[in-house]
Amino acid sequence: MTKRNWLAGVDVGGTTIKLAILDHDGDFITKWEVPTDISDSGHHIPKHIAATLKDKLHSFDATFSDLRGIGVGAPGFIEVETGFIYQAVNIGWRNYPLKERLEMETGVPVFADNDANLAAAGEMWRGAGGGAKNMLCVTLGTGVGGGLISEGIVLHGAAGMAGEIGHITSVPEGGAPCNCGKTGCLETVSSATGIVRLAMEKIEATKSGQLFELFQTTGLVTAKDVFDAAENNDENAKEVVREAMYHLGLAVANLANSLNPNVIVIGGGVSKAGNKLINALRPHFNRFALPKVAAETTFQIAQLGNDAGVIGAAWLVKENINNE
Amino acid sequence: MTKRNWLAGVDVGGTTIKLAILDHDGDFITKWEVPTDISDSGHHIPKHIAATLKDKLHSFDATFSDLRGIGVGAPGFIEVETGFIYQAVNIGWRNYPLKERLEMETGVPVFADNDANLAAAGEMWRGAGGGAKNMLCVTLGTGVGGGLISEGIVLHGAAGMAGEIGHITSVPEGGAPCNCGKTGCLETVSSATGIVRLAMEKIEATKSGQLFELFQTTGLVTAKDVFDAAENNDENAKEVVREAMYHLGLAVANLANSLNPNVIVIGGGVSKAGNKLINALRPHFNRFALPKVAAETTFQIAQLGNDAGVIGAAWLVKENINNE
Repeated sequence: MTKRNWLAGVDVGGTTIKLAILDHDGDFITKWEVPTDISDSGHHIPKHIAATLKDKLHSFDATFSDLRGIGVGAPGFIEVETGFIYQAVNIGWRNYPLKERLEMETGVPVFADNDANLAAAGEMWRGAGGGAKNMLCVTLGTGVGGGLISEGIVLHGAAGMAGEIGHITSVPEGGAPCNCGKTGCLETVSSATGIVRLAMEKIEATKSGQLFELFQTTGLVTAKDVFDAAENNDENAKEVVREAMYHLGLAVANLANSLNPNVIVIGGGVSKAGNKLINALRPHFNRFALPKVAAETTFQIAQLGNDAGVIGAAWLVKENINNE
Repeated sequence: MTKRNWLAGVDVGGTTIKLAILDHDGDFITKWEVPTDISDSGHHIPKHIAATLKDKLHSFDATFSDLRGIGVGAPGFIEVETGFIYQAVNIGWRNYPLKERLEMETGVPVFADNDANLAAAGEMWRGAGGGAKNMLCVTLGTGVGGGLISEGIVLHGAAGMAGEIGHITSVPEGGAPCNCGKTGCLETVSSATGIVRLAMEKIEATKSGQLFELFQTTGLVTAKDVFDAAENNDENAKEVVREAMYHLGLAVANLANSLNPNVIVIGGGVSKAGNKLINALRPHFNRFALPKVAAETTFQIAQLGNDAGVIGAAWLVKENINNE
């Protein structure tokens, strides 16, 4: 029986490990997840990944030899060439030779990268990027994350810190404090947290409007509530959306002037606002981007959701195998 | 006699064509220049390049067969894969198959790229970049140009427009008009032209100080004069330097947060201010860059001057030949 040349993708999070087996075109053979065992500083994780992969392969009458390789994403600071994890706080890994351990357990070539980079690669390969070789991926969640793809490769930078677009300074003077130690970072105004912060300021100041009433009733306002209320013509919400999208549009236009992406993909919790978000963002982007850049850059909402990481991890295998 | 494996670098400008022959390590065998013949929309240029190269090779008892390839840089919009020039206004080329023509004339493989990108590559290979794989090159001249190198490759973007960092919006509201049609672009405040513009505003407003006196005497103020006067404690000059370097520091820090370069190389006429410039720029950069990025990024003044283009063109040959 011939080997199947499958790709395995693994996305290690603090709570669950997502896994998938894909064919060479990135179509799913199967996907599943297991809980993350973070005991002993995450030391048992490679063994658990190997065991669950082996079981799953077995259920397809397959073995490790049917895999071209295993791609692994993790949140943290990873040396891509060696698959060495400097630090992955949520997992417990510190100076952890992930590639080496997982290769020892499986006998299959392993490639590792930061999970945000792999999510961007997943969207490029099989999602909203549509195969674009120049892509900017912006994740609007608790913070603002980024993945940059240029000339078809994921950019890592000198020390693996490329893509920290959440810490672009959007409010140079008098901005709100950011977790990074600076003030006025993009994520203080355009992340889910930032949008809710701006909304709460308005609620406090005006004690009126749809957001105020919602907060009185439920004790909670989300970024999506803010976009919905803005569409419903609530003045507070409209101002918050304008402010958040103004700063995001300016930051992303400045990046687009520098990197000239084909497509800008917006993901993360805030992207659930969908076209409302893109329609609010686009005018600011168009104003600050070079005319030719504004005309030729498209915006897309991320399509792969939680699958982006495992698909990107499989892409990483494909890329590395092709270049060998 | 064995072949010499030399690299030819050609930098086509509106007035002169700079040429060089280099060995595989990027050391000069020889360099020279010839006037640019822009008659007939630049149609004769490939023939002239071939003729002067052939003569020069002959003076070294060499022929075209001693060249691995010819790299060519030109100002304009170039499709790198095909060496096709969409437009190079100063030369007259429009939809011009440069690679094809020059290969026909010489029988040697030809590779072409934008001159700003090749100048950045030259600095990376043999200049201030010191071989860094992640480099940001900022040229402060009449405008502000840029060349981005990530993971050892020159970034071009979706339509060859990557590196237009002069059009990052530095003054979002109420900025000065820029040639690109927008307002408040980085080059309106931090280019040589922008610095002189800010200085003239101060001279007009205060009619006093060293810059005012210089202008009264010579009718001219340059960006270098402004840095010199600032060092001499002239208040107007200090304010202009602060404003120009504040905006440059913010823009470059935001790019560094996104791209994580090892080194930022500053070239162009304004870079003649040397360490005065870097000392004025660095505090603003440090304030707006992520702490780890600020700590690990170095600044350098460009070292190769007018040779950067031909050295970068030779690098382009080396890169392409190595990847074949």
